[in-house]
Amino acid sequence: MLYQGKNYRTVWLDEGKLFIIDQNELPYNFKIIELENINHVFAAIQKMKIRGAPAIGAVAALGYALAIYRSIDSQLSENIIQYYELLLASRPTAVDLKNGLDAVKWSIENESDPNVIKTAALQAANIFVENSVLECKSIGKYGNQLIADGCRILTHCNAGALATVDHGTALAPMREAHYCGKKIFVYVDETRPRCQGMRLTAWELAQEGIDHAIIADNAAGYYMQQGKIDLVITGADRIAANGDIANKIGTYSKAVLAKENGVPFYIAAPFSTFDRELSSGQDIPIEERSPDEVLKFNNLALSSGLSTAYNPAFDITPAKYITGYITPAGIFTIKDFYKLWEMNIKAQSSRQS
Amino acid sequence: MLYQGKNYRTVWLDEGKLFIIDQNELPYNFKIIELENINHVFAAIQKMKIRGAPAIGAVAALGYALAIYRSIDSQLSENIIQYYELLLASRPTAVDLKNGLDAVKWSIENESDPNVIKTAALQAANIFVENSVLECKSIGKYGNQLIADGCRILTHCNAGALATVDHGTALAPMREAHYCGKKIFVYVDETRPRCQGMRLTAWELAQEGIDHAIIADNAAGYYMQQGKIDLVITGADRIAANGDIANKIGTYSKAVLAKENGVPFYIAAPFSTFDRELSSGQDIPIEERSPDEVLKFNNLALSSGLSTAYNPAFDITPAKYITGYITPAGIFTIKDFYKLWEMNIKAQSSRQS
Repeated sequence: MLYQGKNYRTVWLDEGKLFIIDQNELPYNFKIIELENINHVFAAIQKMKIRGAPAIGAVAALGYALAIYRSIDSQLSENIIQYYELLLASRPTAVDLKNGLDAVKWSIENESDPNVIKTAALQAANIFVENSVLECKSIGKYGNQLIADGCRILTHCNAGALATVDHGTALAPMREAHYCGKKIFVYVDETRPRCQGMRLTAWELAQEGIDHAIIADNAAGYYMQQGKIDLVITGADRIAANGDIANKIGTYSKAVLAKENGVPFYIAAPFSTFDRELSSGQDIPIEERSPDEVLKFNNLALSSGLSTAYNPAFDITPAKYITGYITPAGIFTIKDFYKLWEMNIKAQSSRQS
Repeated sequence: MLYQGKNYRTVWLDEGKLFIIDQNELPYNFKIIELENINHVFAAIQKMKIRGAPAIGAVAALGYALAIYRSIDSQLSENIIQYYELLLASRPTAVDLKNGLDAVKWSIENESDPNVIKTAALQAANIFVENSVLECKSIGKYGNQLIADGCRILTHCNAGALATVDHGTALAPMREAHYCGKKIFVYVDETRPRCQGMRLTAWELAQEGIDHAIIADNAAGYYMQQGKIDLVITGADRIAANGDIANKIGTYSKAVLAKENGVPFYIAAPFSTFDRELSSGQDIPIEERSPDEVLKFNNLALSSGLSTAYNPAFDITPAKYITGYITPAGIFTIKDFYKLWEMNIKAQSSRQS
């Protein structure tokens, strides 16, 4: 991702030190902070200095591996267990968090030599992170095929580089189209209540030099009705076996409006977001967050104090509203995607047997 | 409307003085201010200390009449023209503003005696205001028929007492249901970007003791999908001959979501909102307001300063999404309403001939 013309990742290792962009400071300040120990990693995830499922998975993997690497040999086996438990508890729902930690843990499961363990942990974390970057890059390449020159795209929330290690999911196709010299325009839902669209997505697009405007969430339907939106791309937090998706509150509304206005609606997501064990979106619990996220803006109260707010953080968009899924393996209908998935599993098991 | 258990109007005359509730101070302070002269009236409308089409019509009628009443006889005919022009220019679009001024002007058109003019002007303004209150009361009575005990209602923006002289349009049926002892619950769209729902509607409902919660505009579809909303009632700024309506940005989105989820969607409006000369909603120009309304919250910037915002203030909801129109004469389909209207015009002209 670009900042003032220079390339950055959301999280990275440099000379054995772990760095992140502090997203709580954006869009006001671009601040890089070092996470010096496992407690820093825990706090950074919990305080949402780093957010977005793939980014959390990456910082957890790197933070966990680095803490293992730095352990005194005599405390190593104890730390491997403790640090895993600690980081796993840093955020409640993101499956990528567990995936990142597991990638490191599994790589050292049958090892006993401290030096081998330390090297293997770091290597596994690095592979996990690079794989995450490659998946996003692939999403960008495939998604770019949907984008014609002059295309006007709506996106919701931030499924950008900041939510991943780099490139993003929903924003990856827009970056790729822009790099290919296509002229595009992005309508950025501000995404109340936490305004990740206004704060983060708009900031990323501005840094890339991609033409865009922030709109109130209320205005998305208006622009679709006016025929000014050609395509909607959002990310997803979870994708069920039937293709229903959970994503930031308001995604469902945009999907209904897109269908009503004949606008294609795509979900961009890495493999880890697909959850074949989950039969439908109805089984996904919706997190209810603090009323203050609605009632206050940067701690400034906007209501009288006499009213409460309801604040569901996510909603479920049924598969019937979704035109297709942009994945690292191509653009699919949900049926085709899971068919491919099963073929891969069969191919893998036949190789292993 | 109640404030701390006492009844108020949005605008009123008391012992020859004109008062309003300063809506820019809400919901933080309940501040009553006197509009001492015609320039105060102009500034109050322009700075949106008083807003909402019916409320603007009322303050314009009363302010105009009072300024005429207080004129020196020798300047009377000059003032009648000047004050009319001044107030008419205070806000660009509201048709009620012109209606209020015209009610006063027409009442004195063929008069020359200063005392008769002054008395007639004040009387016409008072009649205009009382008529506005009665229309809202009627909307409340009829709309209440749609509300069952336990009903959960969604509303958008503020079409409350604060937008009228009293009772409101969309909020009048909810007040009436509450007064009748029905237990209701209101989902209040915060209504970005200006947050009239969060600031004004929630405040009115809290003062009345009506159970409610503020929600992000993004969450309205979620609650409809969950089957938690039984009825939607909003106001309108203008209603075309074919039943299309213009209302606060986001109304269209809620209407589409209501239809998709089988939730009845009603518009509550006084007679002056119906514009038979306007064939369809496509002919209504949409005001584009300052990007800062989206980008700043009480002057606090929420974006990096590198992005602009688009800020359409209204949208058009096509008639096909509207279940019915709650008017002071009853609840109608658009065809039946205009049929009644024509019957009234015919009856009036046969009485006059």
